[in-house]
Amino acid sequence: MSELEKCMETLIVVFHRYAAGDGDKATLTQKEFKKLMETELSGFLAAQKNPNTVNKMMKDLDQNNDKKLDFEEFVALVVGLTIACEATERLRDNKGLKK
Amino acid sequence: MSELEKCMETLIVVFHRYAAGDGDKATLTQKEFKKLMETELSGFLAAQKNPNTVNKMMKDLDQNNDKKLDFEEFVALVVGLTIACEATERLRDNKGLKK
Repeated sequence: MSELEKCMETLIVVFHRYAAGDGDKATLTQKEFKKLMETELSGFLAAQKNPNTVNKMMKDLDQNNDKKLDFEEFVALVVGLTIACEATERLRDNKGLKK
Repeated sequence: MSELEKCMETLIVVFHRYAAGDGDKATLTQKEFKKLMETELSGFLAAQKNPNTVNKMMKDLDQNNDKKLDFEEFVALVVGLTIACEATERLRDNKGLKK
């Protein structure tokens, strides 16, 4: 399996691991999402000043407003964070190269 | 680093590795995209019947039509494929559980 394929598998496996907490592995409840964030994205959470970040993110991501996150809604978060990371990295690289 | 953070890093590293081919590591040219697909998603490519799949995908993903793929355009592909994989997996699981 290539690096990219392993990464795609990891996204699915991580989502299902936390989603399975309540027996329904197709969606993350608020509690499951909180656990995932605290475990998998603790660095990101620690950098947030608002103690309500997880609740706010859950609301923002829950497009169909069913108080649960399905895989598509979850992936939107990972993608958004990754795009932000890549942009920051590129900005830093560009600054470093400036004469 | 958590599994999810490693996965986010891999997405960025893999993209930059192929994008750097022509010196500009911010975008994938058609040639670089072809190399990435053939190396990182060879299983997916092998399953396609149309020999023009890579060209067609490049066109579909190139939202701003500049004949290059930036990181956001590339990530849309990975996300689309991962969501399709997850849905297929869930369908298979559900069928398996049906009495």
